[in-house]
Amino acid sequence: MRVVALAGGVGGAKLADGLARVLPPGDLTVVVNTGDDFDHFDLRICPDLDTVCYTLAGIANPETGWGQKDESWQALQSITHLGGPGWFRIGDRDLGTHLERTRRLRSGQRLSQITAAFCRSWGISSQVLPMTDDRVSTIVQTVEMGDLPFQNYFVEYQCRPVVTGFRFAGIEDARPAPGAREAIETADLIVICPSNPWVSISPILHVPGLRQIIETKLVVAVSPIIHGKAVKGPAAKMYAELGLEPSALTVARHYGALLAGFVLDRTDASLEELIHQSGIIPYATNTLMVTSEDRYRLAQEVVGFGELEKRRKSET
Amino acid sequence: MRVVALAGGVGGAKLADGLARVLPPGDLTVVVNTGDDFDHFDLRICPDLDTVCYTLAGIANPETGWGQKDESWQALQSITHLGGPGWFRIGDRDLGTHLERTRRLRSGQRLSQITAAFCRSWGISSQVLPMTDDRVSTIVQTVEMGDLPFQNYFVEYQCRPVVTGFRFAGIEDARPAPGAREAIETADLIVICPSNPWVSISPILHVPGLRQIIETKLVVAVSPIIHGKAVKGPAAKMYAELGLEPSALTVARHYGALLAGFVLDRTDASLEELIHQSGIIPYATNTLMVTSEDRYRLAQEVVGFGELEKRRKSET
Repeated sequence: MRVVALAGGVGGAKLADGLARVLPPGDLTVVVNTGDDFDHFDLRICPDLDTVCYTLAGIANPETGWGQKDESWQALQSITHLGGPGWFRIGDRDLGTHLERTRRLRSGQRLSQITAAFCRSWGISSQVLPMTDDRVSTIVQTVEMGDLPFQNYFVEYQCRPVVTGFRFAGIEDARPAPGAREAIETADLIVICPSNPWVSISPILHVPGLRQIIETKLVVAVSPIIHGKAVKGPAAKMYAELGLEPSALTVARHYGALLAGFVLDRTDASLEELIHQSGIIPYATNTLMVTSEDRYRLAQEVVGFGELEKRRKSET
Repeated sequence: MRVVALAGGVGGAKLADGLARVLPPGDLTVVVNTGDDFDHFDLRICPDLDTVCYTLAGIANPETGWGQKDESWQALQSITHLGGPGWFRIGDRDLGTHLERTRRLRSGQRLSQITAAFCRSWGISSQVLPMTDDRVSTIVQTVEMGDLPFQNYFVEYQCRPVVTGFRFAGIEDARPAPGAREAIETADLIVICPSNPWVSISPILHVPGLRQIIETKLVVAVSPIIHGKAVKGPAAKMYAELGLEPSALTVARHYGALLAGFVLDRTDASLEELIHQSGIIPYATNTLMVTSEDRYRLAQEVVGFGELEKRRKSET
């Protein structure tokens, strides 16, 4: 079962970690959102890519979900003591990643190439790919503050402004990272991880060429919304502000015809019938990943569900 | 007694710290070598400026003399784990300084302006000035490796290559930092700190316009060579490789007509007569600064020696 997981930050990283342990080494490719990437102190920061890699490497901070464990904050403390900007919290270990990545980018290496090298250093056996090596910037369109680059919306303004829409600056000219198209083409199953559909998954689906190939594949999504609430982040708030009731059903309909199957939380089982009516096979289970075992078990169920759908498809 | 101290790294920083405590606040200006400055990870690193400021702020690492105390090395550890360059050891706190300085430089602020703001944050009441806001790079000319940028010679190759000379790239176009000329013009005494004459003091004296004003002033130097050896760094090795016997006498003759007085270590008192014959008034005392009290006492003696010479000059 060759699997490609589309992932954003914490939720996506957790399921990717489960999949990496369920599948034989080499059978998983994680394509990661880079729309959140930005420059801070002239360093290239790739929050989702780092969260996925740190999680797969077992060095993620278990409390925050982002950043590294056993982290210290001395550089940031120096910066703020000198009157510099402290709104984006970079830890010292994390800073090493940004410094070395930026150094390599400036020397002419591509983000996908650097990520592959970093993954080797971190002992990650799955393939982790940025969605693109080109620059794409997610812009959150808001009522109060107009267009906001994602990190300013997300970290500096803590998702407070009311959202009216999104755009992905640079996406028209973005090419899929080398290997992304091939991985999707040869995959038996595409898993859309429980990441924010608007700002984590949507940028990946908007990279020219990727959606068309994904549409030809068996796709299963895992709901990031449980009982009307996002496990983490502003997904539910975004749906509500865009006039949509935040629910697993809304997410399933959001992806619509792209999906063969949809994994939702057991607490939302009452929505199964409506999802089924939308032409998507629902699968209810415990989707909240608290422990490492949760990740493994959910990944196992998602792969099992995919195998079942694959068989069902080939039978019809 | 208004004093301008010309300083490089550790030795200069220690005497500057003594002078800052001996003189009333506001009576000391430290003009610091920036020829060692370089870019690493695209960060502007100013080793001498930082050593002077950290020392004056009381946050210098007492063991190394450079960097900050209570330092951690997590970012560097990340970098080297990812296969990045680790030859220049940047601590996490120190990194904060470089990041914020570089951010401000890129936003258009001048190094002297940034340094003044940092000094306020660090609670430094003396004026600390880079010799220039323009880029100057000390190049060490060597037998084995040709021209080496200073930090590569000093840190990466640990001063091993044999020196044939020095040049200061960019010095012809360098203007003194705002305030440097005025501070020197209005000073009662110029103190050349016990810093490396070739690579710490010489760049300052080569900034167009500075030497001419310094020549009109009362100048006292403190020997960085004690009993034929440099307290720290490659000064003695450099003299030897350039065919000069490393000694306090050699240093005194090196500065020559610039000096009214020369402070040398008590263990070199036998050289006093020869220094006197060169037209320079010698003053022998304990010049090794081990404790904080040593810095204070030596600064007091240097200022006292300067006052005496000033009186002697005005009497003749």
